[in-house]
Amino acid sequence: MFHIDLNCDLGESFGVYKIGNDEEILNYVTSANIACGFHAGDPATMRQTVLLALEKGVSIGAHPGLSDLIGFGRRNLPITPREAYEIVVYQIGALNAFVKAEGGVMKHVKPHGALYNMAAVNRELSEAIARAVYKVDPELVLFGLAGSELVKAGKKVGLQTANEVFADRTYQSDGTLTPRSRENALVTDDRKAVAQVVRMIKEGKVLSEQGADVEIQADTVCIHGDGPHALNFARHIREEFMKEGITVQSYS
Amino acid sequence: MFHIDLNCDLGESFGVYKIGNDEEILNYVTSANIACGFHAGDPATMRQTVLLALEKGVSIGAHPGLSDLIGFGRRNLPITPREAYEIVVYQIGALNAFVKAEGGVMKHVKPHGALYNMAAVNRELSEAIARAVYKVDPELVLFGLAGSELVKAGKKVGLQTANEVFADRTYQSDGTLTPRSRENALVTDDRKAVAQVVRMIKEGKVLSEQGADVEIQADTVCIHGDGPHALNFARHIREEFMKEGITVQSYS
Amino acid sequence: MFHIDLNCDLGESFGVYKIGNDEEILNYVTSANIACGFHAGDPATMRQTVLLALEKGVSIGAHPGLSDLIGFGRRNLPITPREAYEIVVYQIGALNAFVKAEGGVMKHVKPHGALYNMAAVNRELSEAIARAVYKVDPELVLFGLAGSELVKAGKKVGLQTANEVFADRTYQSDGTLTPRSRENALVTDDRKAVAQVVRMIKEGKVLSEQGADVEIQADTVCIHGDGPHALNFARHIREEFMKEGITVQSYS
Amino acid sequence: MFHIDLNCDLGESFGVYKIGNDEEILNYVTSANIACGFHAGDPATMRQTVLLALEKGVSIGAHPGLSDLIGFGRRNLPITPREAYEIVVYQIGALNAFVKAEGGVMKHVKPHGALYNMAAVNRELSEAIARAVYKVDPELVLFGLAGSELVKAGKKVGLQTANEVFADRTYQSDGTLTPRSRENALVTDDRKAVAQVVRMIKEGKVLSEQGADVEIQADTVCIHGDGPHALNFARHIREEFMKEGITVQSYS
Repeated sequence: MFHIDLNCDLGESFGVYKIGNDEEILNYVTSANIACGFHAGDPATMRQTVLLALEKGVSIGAHPGLSDLIGFGRRNLPITPREAYEIVVYQIGALNAFVKAEGGVMKHVKPHGALYNMAAVNRELSEAIARAVYKVDPELVLFGLAGSELVKAGKKVGLQTANEVFADRTYQSDGTLTPRSRENALVTDDRKAVAQVVRMIKEGKVLSEQGADVEIQADTVCIHGDGPHALNFARHIREEFMKEGITVQSYS
Repeated sequence: MFHIDLNCDLGESFGVYKIGNDEEILNYVTSANIACGFHAGDPATMRQTVLLALEKGVSIGAHPGLSDLIGFGRRNLPITPREAYEIVVYQIGALNAFVKAEGGVMKHVKPHGALYNMAAVNRELSEAIARAVYKVDPELVLFGLAGSELVKAGKKVGLQTANEVFADRTYQSDGTLTPRSRENALVTDDRKAVAQVVRMIKEGKVLSEQGADVEIQADTVCIHGDGPHALNFARHIREEFMKEGITVQSYS
Repeated sequence: MFHIDLNCDLGESFGVYKIGNDEEILNYVTSANIACGFHAGDPATMRQTVLLALEKGVSIGAHPGLSDLIGFGRRNLPITPREAYEIVVYQIGALNAFVKAEGGVMKHVKPHGALYNMAAVNRELSEAIARAVYKVDPELVLFGLAGSELVKAGKKVGLQTANEVFADRTYQSDGTLTPRSRENALVTDDRKAVAQVVRMIKEGKVLSEQGADVEIQADTVCIHGDGPHALNFARHIREEFMKEGITVQSYS
Repeated sequence: MFHIDLNCDLGESFGVYKIGNDEEILNYVTSANIACGFHAGDPATMRQTVLLALEKGVSIGAHPGLSDLIGFGRRNLPITPREAYEIVVYQIGALNAFVKAEGGVMKHVKPHGALYNMAAVNRELSEAIARAVYKVDPELVLFGLAGSELVKAGKKVGLQTANEVFADRTYQSDGTLTPRSRENALVTDDRKAVAQVVRMIKEGKVLSEQGADVEIQADTVCIHGDGPHALNFARHIREEFMKEGITVQSYS
């Protein structure tokens, strides 16, 4: 019996600017990471997205990012662990209030973009983030790159953690993702992408770009919410999981 | 036996920009209204101010404002009740997370500046704010202008409310404050200011600018935190309260 | 011989958030109003849009708005004439630098959204805006609602002005636009929209919603840049103008 | 005959947040670097500061910084040369409009904080900044750290440049400033600070922290505008320059 969580970044619109097919993608995922207004999102979008996720029965998490709307939280700003702690406390508090106001319970936290990537390889930053999550609510599950410093830091402070894997990204022999700047960073063939994830779930292994078998734990798979292809892929991966006997359910 | 709460707006610095004598004024007040990053404040300042208030044993509340840093939340932006609801949920959630992370309990909410003033006379806006507070946490006390729509809306949704009075502002015969744009808006003589408050507390009455005795309920007095005079006045009013047998204690 | 200018609001993207079909719509219009970073746009978008407009030979103007990204400059913020002056000077200076850096010449200024609408009926605000434009460059043409306070203020300070008319909006008997909140605000039939503009250009008249013939001067027509229909309509109106013997050329 | 320019960063207030003694310090300096709204400053402050500088006959320059109000432009954000070009064009255009509107002429550009520091050692970034300045107005003088990449880039694109030196900072043997994080970064003794500058002006040399004589060209000295000590030091350095026969005059 295999289980997997499918998560997606949502609520990334801002004012009149719209991004994503939130309403549709929520039909396919089991965890929603909702932007908290720093790199994307705004109070109206947060509320709206929380309501949609509750309506669809999708598990809700906060998706805190760097304060960088113009860079969409993707630029590696020089942030101290203390600042990381502060912006994470702030943002998960803000999202939690919307969830609580609607009678729901916030279940997890997944840092966004540059905050996620910097934390993956930076122990101090990861520990600051993990501490922020724990101090606000020790029941929250911390989502991080499989095997990363963020997952380790989460465990260290006493949080439950979820190892996140990617269907459409290639891996290095040390278990990290191939940087997007490199040629083979993406798995563009949907069948290969699904096969990679299925093997990670069933065998706990992924074939690295260098041709080595790497051990990896897959608790949750990141699904993209942008563009019509995103919906097709989400539908496709769920069908394949069904054939493979993999149950899709919220990790939290 | 008379009781009164002294509240002050705090945590209004932003980045390198500093405002207020937060550390000193906290020695004199019993409730701290902490800015939440929309009209003033930032995550670092919020955390720092929460720590100071906890250290001094001062009751903590959120001080949500309009999203208007350049106007310090003092401009009457055309906000809908729905938007008011959303920005209040967001901000009290953010502050609450800092309080919770430090082991404290957030006790009250006092809207800031234009949000406070617009709500005072606008029932729909007040009900949206009150609902936001109630849905996030029904135990919170809502601070509003004594006798205002905000206090009424708080009661209506089932919240505890605190009627706020001002020592240094004159009143109209309908119980509202004389607008700042008018000549006699301020009580500049400290003795008169204290006497006005003492009478509001002991007799439940204030002499209006027009010379009429107006009924008013005084649960909490607003103390300013800016400038050296603010500290002197805070010290002075506490001494006078002691002489008058008025106990200063947190309303929440 | 009839002439008309077709203008469009452009450069309204922000960071990863994209709005409009700037590149395509530039094939149909003769004046580009480029957002300046306050209500929309950012330095990268401004530069990109200036380059596109120069490449297509479209006349460039600044499109300053209120500092209100989340409201897209459409909310009537309580701005003083002095503040209007300051934000207009700032924004037209910023855009002008991009035009100058690329060897072009900025030709006109058209305020955006709420700034445009408030100025249309507010003489003080209009005079502040007109003064700002004049003091930065007296050769600039000020675009405003046909017959509005803004056009009058522009003339008064010594600027050339362009009266803007709308194809897809209905008019009141006093020459103002029917507010969007009203039922008959929009002309949804493309043929009627074109006919309305053709008559404004050729006869200087428009039939009001109340059935009266109103005098109106049409120097420039506002074309929308959003959605695929926008491109179709732009193509359509140009074809009709050709049939009617109306030459499309930049007003500036 | 020796000449020197004294420059100061001004216009760094934002909304209700006030920084600096702009009005007083303008009595002592010959070049004003005015913040342009990205790291500090706002349209109202920019206009006000331009008016003050014109009134005092102080040469006006733009002081563009990174878009980082909360970090006051002091954090090394990961900016590409292209982005540097764009934000510099934008900001010098904005300030120039205020200067032009008041009948003045903008004379120089000095990047702020992290933008200045990163450019000092990064040729690509410096060339992008220099190109931005040149393309907006080739008559502008580019201020940069004495001997830095920024000064070299300015010369390369055809701009006049001014080598900036510091009275209150120690130097390394390669001509760079001792990083602030190091113990001996600051010259805290005013007499030593003045003597260091006098020698840089008269002999073109500075004694490095390591005890070596380093060649340095001093065209302009950075004077701080914050705090009462700033005014005293400005007064003091001018008196000493007079005794030493050094004429203080605008470089531009």
